[in-house]
Formats: sequence, structure tokens, C-alpha cells
Amino acid sequence: MSKPSLPQGTRDFSAAVVHKRNYILQTIQKVFELYGFQPLETPAMENLETLMGKYGEEGDKLIFKILNNGLDNPAKQDATTAAFDKVLAGKSSKDITERALRYDLTIPFARYVAMNHAQLTMPFKRYQMQPVWRADRPQKGRYREFYQCDADVVGSSSLLNELELTHIYASVFEKLKLPVEIRINSRKILVALATVCGGADKMIDITVAIDKLDKIGIEKVKEELSGRGLNVVQIATIEKYLQISGSNAEKINQLTALIGEVPEGVDGLQEINTLLEHFTAFPNVNLVADFTLARGLNYYTGIIFEVKALGVSMGSIGGGGRYNDLTGLFGVKDIPGVGISFGVDRIYDVLEELNAFPETIQSSTKVLFFNTGATESASAFLLLQELRNRGIAAEIFHENLKFDKQFKYAEKKNIGYVVIIGENELAAGTCVVKNLTTGTQETISREALLTYLF
Amino acid sequence: MSKPSLPQGTRDFSAAVVHKRNYILQTIQKVFELYGFQPLETPAMENLETLMGKYGEEGDKLIFKILNNGLDNPAKQDATTAAFDKVLAGKSSKDITERALRYDLTIPFARYVAMNHAQLTMPFKRYQMQPVWRADRPQKGRYREFYQCDADVVGSSSLLNELELTHIYASVFEKLKLPVEIRINSRKILVALATVCGGADKMIDITVAIDKLDKIGIEKVKEELSGRGLNVVQIATIEKYLQISGSNAEKINQLTALIGEVPEGVDGLQEINTLLEHFTAFPNVNLVADFTLARGLNYYTGIIFEVKALGVSMGSIGGGGRYNDLTGLFGVKDIPGVGISFGVDRIYDVLEELNAFPETIQSSTKVLFFNTGATESASAFLLLQELRNRGIAAEIFHENLKFDKQFKYAEKKNIGYVVIIGENELAAGTCVVKNLTTGTQETISREALLTYLF
Repeated sequence: MSKPSLPQGTRDFSAAVVHKRNYILQTIQKVFELYGFQPLETPAMENLETLMGKYGEEGDKLIFKILNNGLDNPAKQDATTAAFDKVLAGKSSKDITERALRYDLTIPFARYVAMNHAQLTMPFKRYQMQPVWRADRPQKGRYREFYQCDADVVGSSSLLNELELTHIYASVFEKLKLPVEIRINSRKILVALATVCGGADKMIDITVAIDKLDKIGIEKVKEELSGRGLNVVQIATIEKYLQISGSNAEKINQLTALIGEVPEGVDGLQEINTLLEHFTAFPNVNLVADFTLARGLNYYTGIIFEVKALGVSMGSIGGGGRYNDLTGLFGVKDIPGVGISFGVDRIYDVLEELNAFPETIQSSTKVLFFNTGATESASAFLLLQELRNRGIAAEIFHENLKFDKQFKYAEKKNIGYVVIIGENELAAGTCVVKNLTTGTQETISREALLTYLF
Repeated sequence: MSKPSLPQGTRDFSAAVVHKRNYILQTIQKVFELYGFQPLETPAMENLETLMGKYGEEGDKLIFKILNNGLDNPAKQDATTAAFDKVLAGKSSKDITERALRYDLTIPFARYVAMNHAQLTMPFKRYQMQPVWRADRPQKGRYREFYQCDADVVGSSSLLNELELTHIYASVFEKLKLPVEIRINSRKILVALATVCGGADKMIDITVAIDKLDKIGIEKVKEELSGRGLNVVQIATIEKYLQISGSNAEKINQLTALIGEVPEGVDGLQEINTLLEHFTAFPNVNLVADFTLARGLNYYTGIIFEVKALGVSMGSIGGGGRYNDLTGLFGVKDIPGVGISFGVDRIYDVLEELNAFPETIQSSTKVLFFNTGATESASAFLLLQELRNRGIAAEIFHENLKFDKQFKYAEKKNIGYVVIIGENELAAGTCVVKNLTTGTQETISREALLTYLF
């Protein structure tokens, strides 16, 4: 028997980690619900055709496909061989695989809305917190199974939704006591920039190049722009655009000078202004106009968001934006929407690094009853059940072993109190209770124990 | 664009369903924690070799295997063709698939314990609530993705664990207000029966046949026993065993007459007696000795459990048992354990049928602010944020539309209160609040609203 192991890029989560992750997820969930968002859960598996072609060529390669069952049926072998040939030729064949694992939560959501839009109350506000799977090369901080945590509104073009989502971000990170900067830009401003630099058709080239600024730096971005056919004057304009800096107001002034003549630019600037103006102050959260923000995904059409944790070196811990026509991918047109996502794994790492998880979330057993023999245990068991009925997590040690072993169990499980009912206590209707934090110990009546522990 | 659809046997869960499912899961989770169990989460994917051969031949066929990525790499084609040939020959090849989806929670738990036993505090009590996947033919009540919900204790042979698990069952179903019968038997009694009927080596034959009693009836069970080589006298003994009936005490008396001479029988009877004797009364829960209970899985060695809902026609909604050596599958011997499982989907269906979900679990937005224009909305937004800060779920309608449209949105989302701040209210510092349940409406100050809604 070879030693068991986990697939590369996957993890077991032990109790301490589950408690911390749930603290993050529940904080986000509560805020989502305060803002009128309702939960949705979609299956881990989607039809392959639902996913393929939605994430670009690179994304398609990272989708985990599920082998059809029954391939070992000899009657089917000829057909199956032909099907394998198709897979070998680079085409996935339905005879081999027709299902795949969820790659993100956005496309399943779009699929759900396309299937159910007639029944949904619009604007439809949903949140979704589920794992996704990607066949990425595993590395530090990058896993093949990880949680996404999204909120989207569809069926509304109102900028109020962007304002609400900005406040959801702020409220969550305020509750998590995690200082952040929410960065916003608008794809309309990027369209305006492209218009100024030789035409709106350059928009995607410019966006793709700008999106790499953080990783490759300004010189490489200029090389990339040149490679994508932009001339020296156009590249100079883009460089000027990327160098815009200062306070929100200063940046907006500089940008207005650059693209303020283009209608899309005017629109985009007005949106940014509105959000900045109506953003409520949060002590630990800044809202910042960041015109270097581009976001890779092509479906964004309006405001785009990104969240950076302050004081730690970590990529974005959240992002999102407005899209005009996501369900159009599934044949249902004209349902505009806007959404945001939380990077739960990165938020976890940041909270860990800042030592910002509250101690109270490590819920454990509060009381351990020692096992001192069958008769005593039977009596202890009744008291134990009374504690549980009152909501106190309690256990009885499984065997009548030496006290030091029972103490050791209590220590390892971080249990606060030990209760001992020996022969004498049983006869007297009392129990010995020991506080393992302070070390104090006293003998009290069984009734008194019920109040003692509150 | 073809209409999007879901893979067979999978489901989307909308908000109303998610709330109901979470009510069940959270009820179970709270009880698990009251009893000192701590959470574990394992990845959706396991190495194929971790799962294969653990669920019997039929089970192996129902495991969803994941296609390796990069199969469309031309450089690999020769090797890949050979690998596909192996799959066609009925052997899964590592070149095609080396990962699979979790089929249950027990084997991943055993794998986890085998990998981590040196670090775990024994007895190790874990609970796990996660989806599993099976390529079963979908039918009413049977899905390809469904939740399992398990609690196991490993590292202890004490019957106290069985007693605790029995009470976990009772406590959960009591809290869910679902009348149930918990049925218990012991594999030791089945060993004793086999001993009486021609030898302990007949144990598996007898167990497999008895396990089908509910589905195929006594006559077919007898045919099956005959087919498995048991003679007329032996079959008559088994029939007598299966006809044992009456109260717990009466059944135990009849069984004692039948197998009370066999040491395993004595052991098994004593275990059953102990559990019955120490079981605390719950108004809606009966604990019943049921000697026809067999449970299909071969790894059980002691007490076995099954839970049936009373008053509805539905298979078991829970089951489990003691096993001596589950981690032995992964090379780590001598870690005995016992576990139970909750059938969440079936519990859901039963609660639905009995109309037993509490109304309060359908949490929704409590207050909708009407949108009466940009200036009023900006002012309403500040009040809205104050409500949210006080924990009240609230929304503002996304656009300044006619009131009937805004009312309709509130109705559809089952929102309790509407707040209107028009031009006059804005000037006066007041708001109109309408209770949509009672229809009453009044104009109050903005400050008064904050207390009005509690």
C-alpha cells in the first residue's frame, strides 16, 4: 500500500482553518444580505459547451473536464476509439467528455439567468460563495481548488448599483478590520483614451497592455503597445495617461485635459465623480480613482473595481465591474449587470499575516467530563446532556483512563473546564470543576454547575 | 446559440432552497459542535488510486474521473494513444486520468487520518458537510451531486461513542421537529447468526441477502440465501431471526433464545442493551433494536445505525456504524472508529412534505427605500446605511420609476416595509413608512425610523 496523498494544488482544511475561513465567508455573507442580495448555488459540473470559449484560449486549457462513464464497455469500443482520436486531434469529443468543473462563478450565473430570467425579480441581486477548479500550475498562493465569492446585480443600468457594491467592499473590509484601497476606473475612459490614440478599435490592445503595467513596468508596456501597432505619438499619449497622479481631484483634472473632449470620456469621468462624491467615509477604507486600472476580462463595459490591501505585499484581493451583455453568450440579450468578487484565499493570507483573526472564532468544546467509571459516567452523562441542552459544547472522556491522560486530551483540544464526578461526588450530588485557564478548582453542587459555566 | 442547460442529475439552488438547506445543515452543525466534533474539509478531487477499489465493483464504475489536462499536446500523442488503449481495455490509465471526484466523505476522511494521525488528538472527532458526486442514473430523489453530512470518532473502541452518536441523531431530529425512529443492530449479532447457520464464513452472504429485505421481501431473500449455498435448515433459522418482533425487551428475549450461546451474540446483545438503557428520552425520537438491519457496507464490525422518518414513505434518512480498521486501507492499522451520516436531500424532502420548515428562515430584505430622484436618493442613501449599520437588511430601488413598479419589486421580494422620502419629506426631515403586511402608513422623523423598525 503506497502512502496516500492529495492531488497537487489541493488542500485539506483542518478545524482551525475551517473556522477562520468561515469567519471570512460569514462576514461577507452577512454584508451581502444586509444589502438585499440573496444566495444562489450552482452545480460543480457544467456542460462542457457552457464553459468552453468563455475564458479565452488559455482559460479553455485550464478547464477540468470529466471523463464520461462507461468507457470500459466493450460494445462501445469502436465508437470510443474514434472519439479518442478526436480528443487527440485537439477537439474534445462528446463521446469522451461532455461535462467539466466550474471554472468561475460568473459564467454559471449567466447560464442561470439565461435559463430563468422570466421568473426572476429584476433587478436580480444574487451572491454565490462556492469553490472553483482550474488546472493551473500550482504555486505559492495558487491552488487548483479555491473559493470564489461573488455578488452581482443584473437587470439594471443604474450607477446606484456600483455605489452599493463599493459600499459592500468597504463594509466587509471594515468588519474584517483590514485597511484597503478600493480602486475604480471606467472602461469608458479607456475607450476615450483609445479614441484619442488612433481609434476605438485599439481599445483591447491598449487594455491588454495596460493591464500588465504592475507586472512588467512601463517600458515593457510601451514595447507591447508598439508591437500591437501603436505609433510613437500614440504611445506617448498613453504614457502621459499612465503617469496621471495626485489626489482624486488632481487626477480627474489631468484626465479631463487629456480625454475630456471625447463623449465616452465625459461619461466615464461623470461616473467616477458620482461614486467618489457619494461614497460614505469608512475609517479604514479609501476609494481612489486609478486610471491605470484595466482588468483583463473583455466583457467589462463600464466601471471596473479592484481592491488592494494596505501594508502588505499582495495582489488584488477583490475585483469586478459592469458588463452590458453577459447572458448574450447564452442567447438572452439586453440584461446589463455589474458584479464584484472577493479573493477569499488572499484575504485569508493577509489576515494571517496581519494577525487579524479574532481569537473568539476558534470555537471548541467548553467542558470535558472526566470518565471515572461506568456508574459515575452514566450519572455524568445526564448532567452533560443538560449542559448541551443549554447550548454549551461539552464532552465526556471516552474511557476510564488515568487523569493525566484525560487532562492531556483537554489541553490539546483547548477545553476550558474539566468536571470530575468521582465516587464521593456521586454520593454527595456534587462535582469538582476545574478552570484550566486559571487553575482554580472547587466542589459545587450539580445544579450550581449549570449556572457556574455561563 | 443553443439553449443552455444543466448536466443531468444536477441542480441549481435558488435563494429559497438555499435558506432551507442551510437551516438543515446549520442545525446539524450546531449539534455536532455541542458534542465536541470539529469541522474538516477535504478537496473535491482525490487521487484516483485513493478512491478506486474502496466502494466495490459497482461503486468504482460510478466514480467521476477527471480527464488529465494537456492531452491535446501533439508531442504526447503516441503515449496518449497507448494510454487511451488501456482505458478501452477497461483499465484506467494514469496518462488519461489520475484524479476523480469525491464519492463519499468516509474514504477521504480515512485518507486524511492515515496522512495525519500522528498530529491528531485521539479520540479524533470530526464532522464534514460537503457535496459528493456519483455517476448514478438520475431519478426522482437521486442526484449526481448531493450533500453528505458525517460525524466520525476514530481512535476509540468505547461504546460511549455509539451512545453519543445516538444522541446526536436524536437531538438533531428533535430540533428539526421531525419524528424519527433510530434503529440499531450489531454486526456481532449477524456474525452469531452466521455461526448458528453453518459458520461465520457465511456472514457476508447472509448480510447481503438480509440487507435487501425491505426491497425484495422475505421470499426473495430466502431464494437469494439458497442461491448462496445455505440449506433449508439454515434458511429456516434466518427466517425465524427475521421474524423476531415486539418491544425492544421482547425482541431481545427472542434473539437471546436463538443466538445467546454464541460469544459474539452475547457481546452484541450487551451493546444493544447498554445503548437502550442509557438512551435519554426525547419526545419525538424512539430508539429501537431492529435485528433485520444489516447495512450494505462491508467495513462495519459492531453497532450499526439507521434512521427512518415516521409518518412518511421514505428510505432511511441517516445511517452509520462501527468499523475496526478503515485507515488500514491506507496502510495505517489499528485505528477503530464509528460514524454516522445524515441524508440531507431526503431530510429536505421529508420536511417539505410535512411542511415543517420554520417560516422565519426565509430571510429577505426588510426595508425598501423608494427611489424618487437623485437628490432624495442621495439623502435616503445615508439613512439606508444607518439601518444597515444597525443590522437591518435594506435596499434602495435602482431607478426613479413609477411607484407601482417599486411596490411590485417589494412584493415579489417579500419585503416588509417601504420607506418613501419625497421632496416634502426631504425638506421636513421626515419619511413615510408603510408596513406592507398590515398596510398601515405613517409619516415619522428620520430618527424615529431607526427605532420604528426594531
